[in-house]
Amino acid sequence: MGGAGRIVRNFNHAIQLIMQLSVIKIGGNVIDDENKLSAFLNDFASLPGDKILVHGGGKVATEIGRKLGIEPNYVNGRRITDEATLLLVTMVYGGLINKKIVSTLQSLNCNAMGLTGADGRILPAAKRPIGETDYGFVGDIHSDDVNTTLLGSLLHLGLTPVIAPLTFDKAGTVLNTNADTIAQEIAKAMARGREVQLIYCFEKKGVLRDVHNDFSVISTIDHAAFSELKENNIISDGMLPKLENAFAAVDSGVKKVVIGHADELQALHSGHGGTSIV
Amino acid sequence: MGGAGRIVRNFNHAIQLIMQLSVIKIGGNVIDDENKLSAFLNDFASLPGDKILVHGGGKVATEIGRKLGIEPNYVNGRRITDEATLLLVTMVYGGLINKKIVSTLQSLNCNAMGLTGADGRILPAAKRPIGETDYGFVGDIHSDDVNTTLLGSLLHLGLTPVIAPLTFDKAGTVLNTNADTIAQEIAKAMARGREVQLIYCFEKKGVLRDVHNDFSVISTIDHAAFSELKENNIISDGMLPKLENAFAAVDSGVKKVVIGHADELQALHSGHGGTSIV
Repeated sequence: MGGAGRIVRNFNHAIQLIMQLSVIKIGGNVIDDENKLSAFLNDFASLPGDKILVHGGGKVATEIGRKLGIEPNYVNGRRITDEATLLLVTMVYGGLINKKIVSTLQSLNCNAMGLTGADGRILPAAKRPIGETDYGFVGDIHSDDVNTTLLGSLLHLGLTPVIAPLTFDKAGTVLNTNADTIAQEIAKAMARGREVQLIYCFEKKGVLRDVHNDFSVISTIDHAAFSELKENNIISDGMLPKLENAFAAVDSGVKKVVIGHADELQALHSGHGGTSIV
Repeated sequence: MGGAGRIVRNFNHAIQLIMQLSVIKIGGNVIDDENKLSAFLNDFASLPGDKILVHGGGKVATEIGRKLGIEPNYVNGRRITDEATLLLVTMVYGGLINKKIVSTLQSLNCNAMGLTGADGRILPAAKRPIGETDYGFVGDIHSDDVNTTLLGSLLHLGLTPVIAPLTFDKAGTVLNTNADTIAQEIAKAMARGREVQLIYCFEKKGVLRDVHNDFSVISTIDHAAFSELKENNIISDGMLPKLENAFAAVDSGVKKVVIGHADELQALHSGHGGTSIV
């Protein structure tokens, strides 16, 4: 009986490991810095378990756009994705950045596969309706539409999906979509069958009690603490929407959202460091 | 017994269909023409059975390169892939062209997935050794190295791989590789477990007996006919390497290589039209 019990426990442990998934997002500040990106990808490649990487854009798109005569286009202070910008980001996010990350991960024995939302219909989106502002070729996605079956199959094949911030409408147009949103919607969707943690890597060590003090990281925030932090105006304007989204993810079944520094990915992944939203 | 026999026959027929695979290559002349590309992708999407599309580059890369100040670089009359050109083709082939094809196919209910050789280690390559000419970041591939297991798994998932003319070395560098060669090596590799036909689409109706007469298509060429055509100088200089490669593919187990016009894909696929190399 002891032997059988051990087998059952080992089996359950194996299943649990299989069902754990980390969805990790990196932004342009890491992508734009060759050394930072290299260090980050080294850490990422060696993380155990199933993982999905979602990457943002970076200044390189703006630089290449400028050379091509594509200037950033703002309406009412909001960045617009016009047709020229769409072609630019399709090239730069879907080609240049995505393939640089994939080939680097492959050299580190991480079997990466680069994808946009169009590939395998992973992220069908709706072009954002024209309201007060016409954002142009921007896609809004919903976790219900994420192709979790295919993502699950790719993970099962031992692949690590590396997802560019591009989605598509079913009429054949690629759309520009925020990488934070993609990471969140994928995490929410995959949480329907797995234990998912969502890790946002950025340039701070976590959510800070004092924005000028890097050692003031708040280690855990739950709903009650969040209300209190908001009442006391401790959350900065930039962090507020990130936290709102993090709580939305947790409320939708994501086990944990971690916000922390890209330099500390391994610690964040194993539950040490950064700010955990639970 | 009749019923059982029919079931066995149906089963065998189903297995045969599953094991048939078409590897289809299109070049820049189709990619550069919006209408031609659209018509081609419509035909491609509706082809029955498993299929893989390999696409070339196109003038758009040269045009974008020129705007970015990247001029085509020739040494001894051969195009060189220097570092700037490598970044350019990674963007344009892997991003712009690949995602345009994928999103268009998705709109036509063909479940396309865009890949470079780095994605899922599908096409590991060796950087071409520096001989008389240093071709720069050019990758040579061999059918033995093609990741047939993963390509098979993707096809099994109902996906249609759409492959950009990019490979990678295991050290993390993307490499530029000729699309004809990629199509050929994939066809040879996949022929080890499947019945593969390789279709090269170009701007002529097939191999012509008289290069000025589009109605002089030679319908079938076997080894004997090829020797005779060469002796009589009927094969043009541009066509000769294509045919040498086609015979190399057939000799390596590819069932049939078809060379024909991109406008006639459906006929070529079903064995009508073009030139068949057997």
